[in-house]
Amino acid sequence: MTPSAPAPGPVYEALAGLRLVDHHCHGVVTADPSPERFASLITEGAAWPGSGISPFDTPVGVAIRRHCAPVLDLPRHASAAEYLARRAELGSREVNRRFVTAAGTDVFCVDTGYAPDDVTTSWELAATAGTADAYEVVRLESVAEAVAAQGVEPGEYATAFHTAVQDAVARRHVVAVKSVAAYRTGFDLDPGRPSDADVTAAAARWLGATGTAPRLDDPVLVRHLLWTAVDVGLPLQLHVGFGDSDIRMHRVDPTHLTDWLHLTSGTVPVLLLHCWPYQRQAAYLSAVFEQVYLDVGLTLHHVGPTRARAVLEEALEVTPFRKLLYSSDAYGVAEFYHLGSLTFRQGLADLLQSRVDTDELSLPDALRIAEWTGQENARRVYFDEP
Amino acid sequence: MTPSAPAPGPVYEALAGLRLVDHHCHGVVTADPSPERFASLITEGAAWPGSGISPFDTPVGVAIRRHCAPVLDLPRHASAAEYLARRAELGSREVNRRFVTAAGTDVFCVDTGYAPDDVTTSWELAATAGTADAYEVVRLESVAEAVAAQGVEPGEYATAFHTAVQDAVARRHVVAVKSVAAYRTGFDLDPGRPSDADVTAAAARWLGATGTAPRLDDPVLVRHLLWTAVDVGLPLQLHVGFGDSDIRMHRVDPTHLTDWLHLTSGTVPVLLLHCWPYQRQAAYLSAVFEQVYLDVGLTLHHVGPTRARAVLEEALEVTPFRKLLYSSDAYGVAEFYHLGSLTFRQGLADLLQSRVDTDELSLPDALRIAEWTGQENARRVYFDEP
Amino acid sequence: MTPSAPAPGPVYEALAGLRLVDHHCHGVVTADPSPERFASLITEGAAWPGSGISPFDTPVGVAIRRHCAPVLDLPRHASAAEYLARRAELGSREVNRRFVTAAGTDVFCVDTGYAPDDVTTSWELAATAGTADAYEVVRLESVAEAVAAQGVEPGEYATAFHTAVQDAVARRHVVAVKSVAAYRTGFDLDPGRPSDADVTAAAARWLGATGTAPRLDDPVLVRHLLWTAVDVGLPLQLHVGFGDSDIRMHRVDPTHLTDWLHLTSGTVPVLLLHCWPYQRQAAYLSAVFEQVYLDVGLTLHHVGPTRARAVLEEALEVTPFRKLLYSSDAYGVAEFYHLGSLTFRQGLADLLQSRVDTDELSLPDALRIAEWTGQENARRVYFDEP
Repeated sequence: MTPSAPAPGPVYEALAGLRLVDHHCHGVVTADPSPERFASLITEGAAWPGSGISPFDTPVGVAIRRHCAPVLDLPRHASAAEYLARRAELGSREVNRRFVTAAGTDVFCVDTGYAPDDVTTSWELAATAGTADAYEVVRLESVAEAVAAQGVEPGEYATAFHTAVQDAVARRHVVAVKSVAAYRTGFDLDPGRPSDADVTAAAARWLGATGTAPRLDDPVLVRHLLWTAVDVGLPLQLHVGFGDSDIRMHRVDPTHLTDWLHLTSGTVPVLLLHCWPYQRQAAYLSAVFEQVYLDVGLTLHHVGPTRARAVLEEALEVTPFRKLLYSSDAYGVAEFYHLGSLTFRQGLADLLQSRVDTDELSLPDALRIAEWTGQENARRVYFDEP
Repeated sequence: MTPSAPAPGPVYEALAGLRLVDHHCHGVVTADPSPERFASLITEGAAWPGSGISPFDTPVGVAIRRHCAPVLDLPRHASAAEYLARRAELGSREVNRRFVTAAGTDVFCVDTGYAPDDVTTSWELAATAGTADAYEVVRLESVAEAVAAQGVEPGEYATAFHTAVQDAVARRHVVAVKSVAAYRTGFDLDPGRPSDADVTAAAARWLGATGTAPRLDDPVLVRHLLWTAVDVGLPLQLHVGFGDSDIRMHRVDPTHLTDWLHLTSGTVPVLLLHCWPYQRQAAYLSAVFEQVYLDVGLTLHHVGPTRARAVLEEALEVTPFRKLLYSSDAYGVAEFYHLGSLTFRQGLADLLQSRVDTDELSLPDALRIAEWTGQENARRVYFDEP
Repeated sequence: MTPSAPAPGPVYEALAGLRLVDHHCHGVVTADPSPERFASLITEGAAWPGSGISPFDTPVGVAIRRHCAPVLDLPRHASAAEYLARRAELGSREVNRRFVTAAGTDVFCVDTGYAPDDVTTSWELAATAGTADAYEVVRLESVAEAVAAQGVEPGEYATAFHTAVQDAVARRHVVAVKSVAAYRTGFDLDPGRPSDADVTAAAARWLGATGTAPRLDDPVLVRHLLWTAVDVGLPLQLHVGFGDSDIRMHRVDPTHLTDWLHLTSGTVPVLLLHCWPYQRQAAYLSAVFEQVYLDVGLTLHHVGPTRARAVLEEALEVTPFRKLLYSSDAYGVAEFYHLGSLTFRQGLADLLQSRVDTDELSLPDALRIAEWTGQENARRVYFDEP
């Protein structure tokens, strides 16, 4: 601990020991990734081979070398080459076990609908972490695309999709649905529920566009998907903001959802994921709509520990303390379970302890906020715990 | 004062003693609010009864328990229940007197056009604060809606509205007009002055829509309202950004006003209110348009003392120091007069003193900036004082 | 050094001694500016004579009085009047020599296409700084407008413009082209390459609009200009964000370029200049598109040393460390060479040293990032150095 580091205190201790509920994450790749594959998995960009630009020379790359290397018995700030060698030496099974265990997480809610790689199932993941429970989040676009792939008449699409979603969420351990509308159309959509005729016409265009399963990116069908989520009644997770180059960032400001949130008020909880650089806009929505919640998962490990507090400060500027949740949004590499947890704990502890130190917040309040955001807010939304 | 708190200094002392001009605020409710009503008044959302989410568990709720409780003779961080009980025990008259006095404000410019509750008049408010002066800000949408409610032919609407505004501002103590166009249409409007025929046609649609006074939200009539403000010639206050769920945040980026500001250059001062999360965009406009000013009222007490400096830092990144004004934008509960003043004084003192401490700003300059923003900039705009 | 200032360290020392590559700047006025002219040159607004609002009473004005006054042998925080008197006494030649030398810059890449004033050429500038090298950046809108001014048939415009750009970049020392599309149309353009017929039709409208050289602001021709840049093959600098009142800020969010960046992937490097208040959006693009780079030039001296670190922190939240470049974007007054350099060095040193102090970054990594951003990233992009 250097003189300029914040002094530890009871909030740090509480957050260090807190068991987390990770309300949105993914599996990790099962095979040992090659150096190139590992590089591509730690960036929202790509590995850019031959460019001279390494994904290790980024905030998240620096954080891996600083905070993940010691978990693999390496010195802090080990080189990328040393890191990759040691990772290969230990093997994915051991590496995954160490990082998932280090995350200190009791519950994982796993989005199983995105798996361009061979990744662990939610059950395998829970087993990796020993005692953790796993739940599933159903990605609605994947369900719709599976319906299309199986073949459906346009006039039957709406019913078939609704039935398929109901079947998907009827399985044990499903606690939420998720949409990546942000990637498909953005949020500047007509907020209203589309008519049956509109859905049929859109489905005809979409299903007729190709013989095989197309990508669901029709604005009418994306709206219909969001309204189907309302009908099904489970909490709805929405990707917001940061992601890969498939995002059109200017179209995913979540305040574009305002009219839709008015129309769907009193129905399902809506959980805004990631949110950066729109964390203030998401915070505003959570302050004025009872059903809106947010997290800054994915963001925190990408910006790293040196900026986690700054992002959390903005995310909490006007946010009710029962509205912020924890997620890692880890995908692909188990390092992100550890880094997501570490940046959240450290960033929130910095924020809360400094408020206690200046007497702007009482210690009991700080400890309550830590528990709420780390686990209890998620338990309320997904498991109806008080 | 804890060791980690910033050391006091002459800037803190100067700001602590500075008498403020609050260039935009509202009345407070005259009756003793019930616990539920109080809860709903301290949030831009709602009380959400039965949700388990209390408006006290927010940044502003924490600030009330920390900074307002002692004014009511309670310990810092008193519980919400204790706070409400003590508030009821003292009664609104005494509570209001204490908080308005604590605000250290010499001049209140009161928007009297928004009063869903029974609130104090500007005169009562001034009396509450003892020696303070009160001035009035005329809300233009309320004037337009009153014109409609009294009955007017579409072809006479423009003249009737202009006359009504002129009558309203001719009263003593009126120093400005205000528009809530942000709530009605947003700022992505055609910037030009609408033709007489366009106004008549829009008025016909609007007045014909309902037998009783409708809400002014027609884009042509909102544009006409803004141009009428230019014709009348008083400083124009514009709600920008943060507010309740009636805002479509993506439509109230104030830089949408750029073309209109070009067209109206050389006419009336334009004062951008609240601004969060667009404080940087507002700052930019204030840097490049002579007539543009801004404040971060409402924002400061909602984010609380721990974030007031951060918001002010962004609001001042490129802003001429004669362009930032103070407002509380207090409405409903007198706590917000106190918190608005406290967060402004503390946030600005932190900002200025740290610049003096690192020798980036001279002490005389810091003291000048404090006086300008706390009162003199408002005196220049509204009272033609140098 | 006061107690609250960050303790110096090896990163400060390294950055203080680093020779910079200034990848985007302009000439400075050759004549001694009058006080009014100097005032207008230090703001993106205007001098606003008679308003009582001085461009010295701004963050950049305070920075000039604090950091430039000593270079002219004045005490820190000298008054504006003293500053202007001393500046006139020394004369522009000596003033320019002192400030350009103080910038510690080895290479200047000069945009020579904007010169409403009589300004130094890039060669004169290099001579002013003694040993520095100068390169040229060709402003494409100026080339297009020169083509129009010389007279061209609409059907020949595309070829004439392409030829003129090729001639311009074939000159010695030209290393990049630049577009100010941000000022002309914003970035919410159709991303596709316009057809020949579309260009001819647009050129006919544009060239027919006036007998003399018009301003290129036709959306089709601006798109055509950007695609011509791709064809020519040099790095493309794009003005983004902050600038004078001619910007429509809401239209220059660089993420509007996403589709165009997909279409032009694998062609030319794209360098986003200034970026504020969209530094996070620019950072995102640099993280997901191999060809995208950014700087926060212009921004840093306008926000001043007290906010330079904050802006850099946001600009680097997700940015690969090989993607951030240094520029001053100095125009008109030589003070901005000095302030651009000083705010960059100080802001980046604060950022990096604090990460080293908290052991979040190794010292060798910090020193590497300083060299990359201060000069090597620019050398890679413009001079193909590794």
